[in-house]
Amino acid sequence: MTDHDKGFCIWFTGLSGAGKSTIAEVVVEELRRRGHRVELLDGDEVRQNLSKGLGFSKEDRDTNIRRIGWVAAVLARNGVVAVTAAISPYRDIRDEVRGQIDHFVEVFVDTPIDVCEERDVKGLYAKARSGEIPEFTGVSDPYEEPLAAEVRVVTDDREVTASAAQVLSYLEDAGLTHPGPAPRHD
Amino acid sequence: MTDHDKGFCIWFTGLSGAGKSTIAEVVVEELRRRGHRVELLDGDEVRQNLSKGLGFSKEDRDTNIRRIGWVAAVLARNGVVAVTAAISPYRDIRDEVRGQIDHFVEVFVDTPIDVCEERDVKGLYAKARSGEIPEFTGVSDPYEEPLAAEVRVVTDDREVTASAAQVLSYLEDAGLTHPGPAPRHD
Repeated sequence: MTDHDKGFCIWFTGLSGAGKSTIAEVVVEELRRRGHRVELLDGDEVRQNLSKGLGFSKEDRDTNIRRIGWVAAVLARNGVVAVTAAISPYRDIRDEVRGQIDHFVEVFVDTPIDVCEERDVKGLYAKARSGEIPEFTGVSDPYEEPLAAEVRVVTDDREVTASAAQVLSYLEDAGLTHPGPAPRHD
Repeated sequence: MTDHDKGFCIWFTGLSGAGKSTIAEVVVEELRRRGHRVELLDGDEVRQNLSKGLGFSKEDRDTNIRRIGWVAAVLARNGVVAVTAAISPYRDIRDEVRGQIDHFVEVFVDTPIDVCEERDVKGLYAKARSGEIPEFTGVSDPYEEPLAAEVRVVTDDREVTASAAQVLSYLEDAGLTHPGPAPRHD
């Protein structure tokens, strides 16, 4: 078994619009270039496939996160790098998932809410403020910051590539990847 | 990429008590011995982790099977052999899942219902006959046999190992595995 066969989980957490998916995509691309098998479990895609019908109460959010965590654990124990990008606002459930995965790297994308709201890529904050979307994390629903995330990236004044580099640097220091040569493309 | 890095799906289908899990476990053990990464997605375990709250109406069964299929597809595209052992009684949903996975090997465990009922390992048929369990496949709910399964095993007069050998033989003919030497155990 080579280094590239070791499965682990990179768990991005943060507000809507914080930049989780954008940073995750850069990390995923680089890990694939290094020869890892990588699966990006995006919050919206997982809701569609595993959690249709669930809402945004704490109970339903917890169920959704547990399901993402279970799939991530199955992937990681089979040598795949599972990268998740879901808000995952509750600390206890993130820690519960952490307990089920050998190598769990929590990445807190710590973008201030006013920056997320100014970006408002999907127009969700406007709808949350107007009351059209209830139970919106950071506006009308809690977000519990990680107390001891392996990586904390602050994105308000940094490039996406710098944030991704910070994550990769952590993974290298932890012995989970190394910046080897790109695999041959025949 | 070696042969052992190719992901695929072995989808067992058949009545409760037909022997799906038992045969699957033997196949899984042998594939692991050959160096494959293998994950067994057992029907009961998946219900617990991905489908809590779902019942046994056609709609709920379909949702459960779609979720198993989605996880199997994610595993297979990452080089893992996903082995599923769920009744999966409806043909249209099995075929829907088939359409989402490159190498899909459907194994019909064709055990007659009277044999399953005589075994009644979990005591479920007795409860189904007494009406204590409604919507029980083969008793009060339909089972739609595959029309063109890659493998059909008849277990009423055969050993489990013979059934498993039949599945492995198909996989070898299809170029998905080969009976190579066992990996070294250091």
